[in-house]
Amino acid sequence: MDGSYSGAFRAELADLMRWRRDVRRFRSDPVAADVLARCLAAFGLAPSVGLSEPWRVIAVESAAARAAALANFKAANGQALAGYVGEKARLYSQLKLSGMREAPLQLAVFCDDGTAKGAGLGAATMPETRAYSVVGAITLFWLAARAEGLGVGWVSILDAALLARDLDVPADWRLIGYLCVGWPETLAEVPELEQIGWERRAPALVMEAR
Amino acid sequence: MDGSYSGAFRAELADLMRWRRDVRRFRSDPVAADVLARCLAAFGLAPSVGLSEPWRVIAVESAAARAAALANFKAANGQALAGYVGEKARLYSQLKLSGMREAPLQLAVFCDDGTAKGAGLGAATMPETRAYSVVGAITLFWLAARAEGLGVGWVSILDAALLARDLDVPADWRLIGYLCVGWPETLAEVPELEQIGWERRAPALVMEAR
Repeated sequence: MDGSYSGAFRAELADLMRWRRDVRRFRSDPVAADVLARCLAAFGLAPSVGLSEPWRVIAVESAAARAAALANFKAANGQALAGYVGEKARLYSQLKLSGMREAPLQLAVFCDDGTAKGAGLGAATMPETRAYSVVGAITLFWLAARAEGLGVGWVSILDAALLARDLDVPADWRLIGYLCVGWPETLAEVPELEQIGWERRAPALVMEAR
Repeated sequence: MDGSYSGAFRAELADLMRWRRDVRRFRSDPVAADVLARCLAAFGLAPSVGLSEPWRVIAVESAAARAAALANFKAANGQALAGYVGEKARLYSQLKLSGMREAPLQLAVFCDDGTAKGAGLGAATMPETRAYSVVGAITLFWLAARAEGLGVGWVSILDAALLARDLDVPADWRLIGYLCVGWPETLAEVPELEQIGWERRAPALVMEAR
């Protein structure tokens, strides 16, 4: 056993990565608890610096918490729109940049920068690797969710510090991402930002150090 | 077609996540170009804020570049060891924390914080999401490599600014991770930090916002 997986599996894995989208258009029907649990299990398999596992996942359920998050997004999105002019402003105003009104499940994912777990291994010179560990875990969750047919949308148009205060999390916790989760209205191989003409995919390149 | 994948595929995906390790013990035989190209293709499928695709991948090949990176790690690792006392210091000194002497392929992965691509969409309030996009891409690369039987080791015990200067990259580029890539000496389901007793995995928990 050399640890490699079959060509058929690798092809399906590439297919999964190709069809993973940032979803902003959700059906409102709920996500069954067992499906969600299978997706969340990906956090427990994710890499983390020094095995610090600094992810903290908050389900945003109450009407008050949802309203605070949505108001936060609307304010930040309005400010962002004001930063564009001309064609970019016109395009931006047409974009649907979050599914926070519809998504049945919403997760605020934080990094606990004060965790003692891992005893700081690997994070002395690059403490930002704790946040990166949370991003890696979110990425595995995203793939697991997509494999179930679920859509995930990562909202970053937020005042992170304000959301942390509104959700009343400990002071050491930093918002990494706000995830909308639910059954997507449609499937698309091409990102919405590419469909609408905001930006295009570039070929991946590797350069060599001098 | 509801966009979900088969139970058999989902089980194999979970298996891949479970066996993904941070590898520090590599065989020295090279990685074929076509295998590497398939893994690097994951960057081109990764999510990125505003479709900014800010990842910049540098192959560290020359003897001078390799020596600079290794000296950087050794200095940072010595400083890190000096920060532990007693049993933790003894354990730390026994850990093999990078495969930089042996790994046939070494990639320094940067984030281009100055990129115009994506026109800043999604990154106004949380500019760190550009770095997070690079982490997501590395995570997909890691899975693709593991599916080929390749090992990846993420080295973060580095002076990031010094490495950027030594590799002579543009001033806007920030080091996200230094990746050692090659065929692993062994396979292990349990992280090395858990095997040696540095830290243990915790169960993943979801809390609810008030």
